[in-house]
Amino acid sequence: MPIVVVYTWSGISSEAKKKVVSGITKVFEDIGIPRHAVEIIIVETPKENWGVGGEQASEKFRDIKPP
Amino acid sequence: MPIVVVYTWSGISSEAKKKVVSGITKVFEDIGIPRHAVEIIIVETPKENWGVGGEQASEKFRDIKPP
Amino acid sequence: MPIVVVYTWSGISSEAKKKVVSGITKVFEDIGIPRHAVEIIIVETPKENWGVGGEQASEKFRDIKPP
Amino acid sequence: MPIVVVYTWSGISSEAKKKVVSGITKVFEDIGIPRHAVEIIIVETPKENWGVGGEQASEKFRDIKPP
Amino acid sequence: MPIVVVYTWSGISSEAKKKVVSGITKVFEDIGIPRHAVEIIIVETPKENWGVGGEQASEKFRDIKPP
Amino acid sequence: MPIVVVYTWSGISSEAKKKVVSGITKVFEDIGIPRHAVEIIIVETPKENWGVGGEQASEKFRDIKPP
Repeated sequence: MPIVVVYTWSGISSEAKKKVVSGITKVFEDIGIPRHAVEIIIVETPKENWGVGGEQASEKFRDIKPP
Repeated sequence: MPIVVVYTWSGISSEAKKKVVSGITKVFEDIGIPRHAVEIIIVETPKENWGVGGEQASEKFRDIKPP
Repeated sequence: MPIVVVYTWSGISSEAKKKVVSGITKVFEDIGIPRHAVEIIIVETPKENWGVGGEQASEKFRDIKPP
Repeated sequence: MPIVVVYTWSGISSEAKKKVVSGITKVFEDIGIPRHAVEIIIVETPKENWGVGGEQASEKFRDIKPP
Repeated sequence: MPIVVVYTWSGISSEAKKKVVSGITKVFEDIGIPRHAVEIIIVETPKENWGVGGEQASEKFRDIKPP
Repeated sequence: MPIVVVYTWSGISSEAKKKVVSGITKVFEDIGIPRHAVEIIIVETPKENWGVGGEQASEKFRDIKPP
């Protein structure tokens, strides 16, 4: 433990994934959890599969790209 | 809040996704939650990744397609 | 299918849960899915377990109660 | 109930998925749950989307393949 | 990997949890995954938080208890 | 987006939760995501509900407490 599931829009870069993995692991190390115990899963879904405020992200955030 | 994660078979239409997003958001508005606070994620997985009653949906529901 | 996991703050009323269950089921019926196939799970967590914009909901939304 | 969400690396074989579905269903039957009530979803994500001990599985387990 | 999240009704016995943990781990060992790599989380929620076919499990399955 | 679901053993301190929320949010800010878009949910479950390597954490990690 902990297990961390991160939901993002599809298409985030490999570099961003790397930073998410190392950064979140560090957050748990800083509260005393051994790093080997931290497991993280990034689940990517297309923007049309996200709804915010009743609209799909593919509409609402048409011009925003994932990092 | 709330966050809603919807698991479906792969291949549901963009039109169906739109209705899922607007419809679920409306359900929460109707109990007093502001629409901007509702976030929905649709996670699609292939029918062979679904098991119902011990069988894969790709076998058990061979002829059924997602909406 | 579908499976729907709804994350909310702890303490939503039984009446609200009932409306969430019947309302979300109806959304899927309206796109052609048989109602018996819709399964919904409401996962409640305390406001201090929610973070929005870097702050716990117990701080940021101190005076807001779940429906 | 129960609903079981299984996160794995992408690329597990169809044969392995079948065994996961039938095997997990059997586990619940053995504790008295009717098999038709067991629903299982396998969510596959690429190895670069997994972090263990601060590293991506695509680095840390470079030579390991899913079953 | 894998990570397995099991959603059940609240109140399943400690003995049943033990069987779920050992049984599911065995399923993955049988397809070639080392047992130490299997992590399982059981998330319990009250029957009124489950919806099946538009009804809460606390109504629909009033007389059924978890194992 | 992103939505982050963190599964931990029950009983982590309010101070630790606060650090998890602010720390994870910072990780995403650092890759260019606005902080208000980051939503985090901490799901706590008792140690007997965790399985690692086929054993419950309540057995395997009998003497370890969450931070």
